[in-house]
Amino acid sequence: MRASGRLVIVGLGPGEPHWLTPAARAALEGASDLIGYGPYLDRLGDLRPDQRRHASDNRVELERARHALTLAAEGRRVAVVSGGDPGVFAMAAAVFEAVEGGDPAWAGLDIHVEPGVTAMLAAAARAGAPLGGDFCAISLSDNLKPWEVLEKRLAAALSADFVICLYNPISRARPWQLGRALAIAREHRAPETPVIFARAVGRADEKLTVVPLAEAAGGLADMATLVIIGASTTRCVLRPAGERPWVYTPRSYGGGR
Amino acid sequence: MRASGRLVIVGLGPGEPHWLTPAARAALEGASDLIGYGPYLDRLGDLRPDQRRHASDNRVELERARHALTLAAEGRRVAVVSGGDPGVFAMAAAVFEAVEGGDPAWAGLDIHVEPGVTAMLAAAARAGAPLGGDFCAISLSDNLKPWEVLEKRLAAALSADFVICLYNPISRARPWQLGRALAIAREHRAPETPVIFARAVGRADEKLTVVPLAEAAGGLADMATLVIIGASTTRCVLRPAGERPWVYTPRSYGGGR
Repeated sequence: MRASGRLVIVGLGPGEPHWLTPAARAALEGASDLIGYGPYLDRLGDLRPDQRRHASDNRVELERARHALTLAAEGRRVAVVSGGDPGVFAMAAAVFEAVEGGDPAWAGLDIHVEPGVTAMLAAAARAGAPLGGDFCAISLSDNLKPWEVLEKRLAAALSADFVICLYNPISRARPWQLGRALAIAREHRAPETPVIFARAVGRADEKLTVVPLAEAAGGLADMATLVIIGASTTRCVLRPAGERPWVYTPRSYGGGR
Repeated sequence: MRASGRLVIVGLGPGEPHWLTPAARAALEGASDLIGYGPYLDRLGDLRPDQRRHASDNRVELERARHALTLAAEGRRVAVVSGGDPGVFAMAAAVFEAVEGGDPAWAGLDIHVEPGVTAMLAAAARAGAPLGGDFCAISLSDNLKPWEVLEKRLAAALSADFVICLYNPISRARPWQLGRALAIAREHRAPETPVIFARAVGRADEKLTVVPLAEAAGGLADMATLVIIGASTTRCVLRPAGERPWVYTPRSYGGGR
């Protein structure tokens, strides 16, 4: 009889170890095999001699998920390592997709998702409180869905006045999508609407830029950037000279309070 | 000259201390004054003799924010304590609102937001990966915005096929809103769409219920519940008898992949 393995999908948070939850750290320490995109595994530092490292490319999520499930089915204690929160545009969905399409025995495995601080929460915290009202999260990675679906979602979110968080805003293979998304936003929102470009929050090369929508451009983002487009109610609070304003969205809306 | 105080708005995460980030713990330890809704402060256990506890009712957020700012302006090191993530329907927006409408000196204070794992991430992790596709977060608390705004946002999110997270779904003062939201969802989504009722995730009385939209009813939620309504693509993965199915939203959509 086969030993029963375990698979945990772990979110490292946005960068700094001080945002890694104790539960996520315990899950990493309890693993015999750690699987993930190389740079995420690098963030863990040296592993113990009894731990095995399985680094992979960022583009082979489903393959990586199947590898993790195969190891777990062999009785290993596997941690799939993800940045931020593993359930938000990351590895958790890929694992369940692999379970559904794979070996029927995989559905009997002990699979656990360990949440983390996702990028939009860290970016929002740095900027102030832009997510104080209703908001949505959209991945601009259109290799997984048609661009028409994205345009429809953007237009719906803009017309219903959600704050909008854009994950995966730009890459070499997707150079124009963010610019187009900002152009759509300009059709619905005032030119002075605050837009936040939060790059590598929690890492040494962190950079936060706040510009009015009229000046927002795709060139302000790279692959490590999270973009937040304010709602009509999102505001800047000015601070003493030289300091970046705080951006927040009031809790009340229109006739409320 | 007044000593310069500090104000940090801290997210405790969804319940268990093992989801409290080290950065949030350090912020709490560095505080001279801890301000918050009583049950959140209770989660901290005993404070040090040099720390002061300021418990308040949950409904006086702006008043609590002003109190915190007043103490910080007096030179105290103040932590405003929030559940989950302080930027998501919690205290951070109230603090910046108070800054904007208050003593001009407050805009010169050192104010910092410390992110945390918000309820929808913990609920999603327990259920599988329902937030694997684009999603939105809506607070059903309509004492802060007109119900018409909420209906419009729900309809927009449903028509553009977002996964929908509902915060503050029900309370004694808001008994019918969740039932109405589910009825609107039934106009747009198939009866078998998975709906997750995640109650008190990370606490001793945690309870997770997954039902098809056709059977989803307001009575399955209470004030401590986070509700997630699947998108058209959200699926259940069946497990061996007696175990709750996993719920996930595939990363790809329609013609993608």
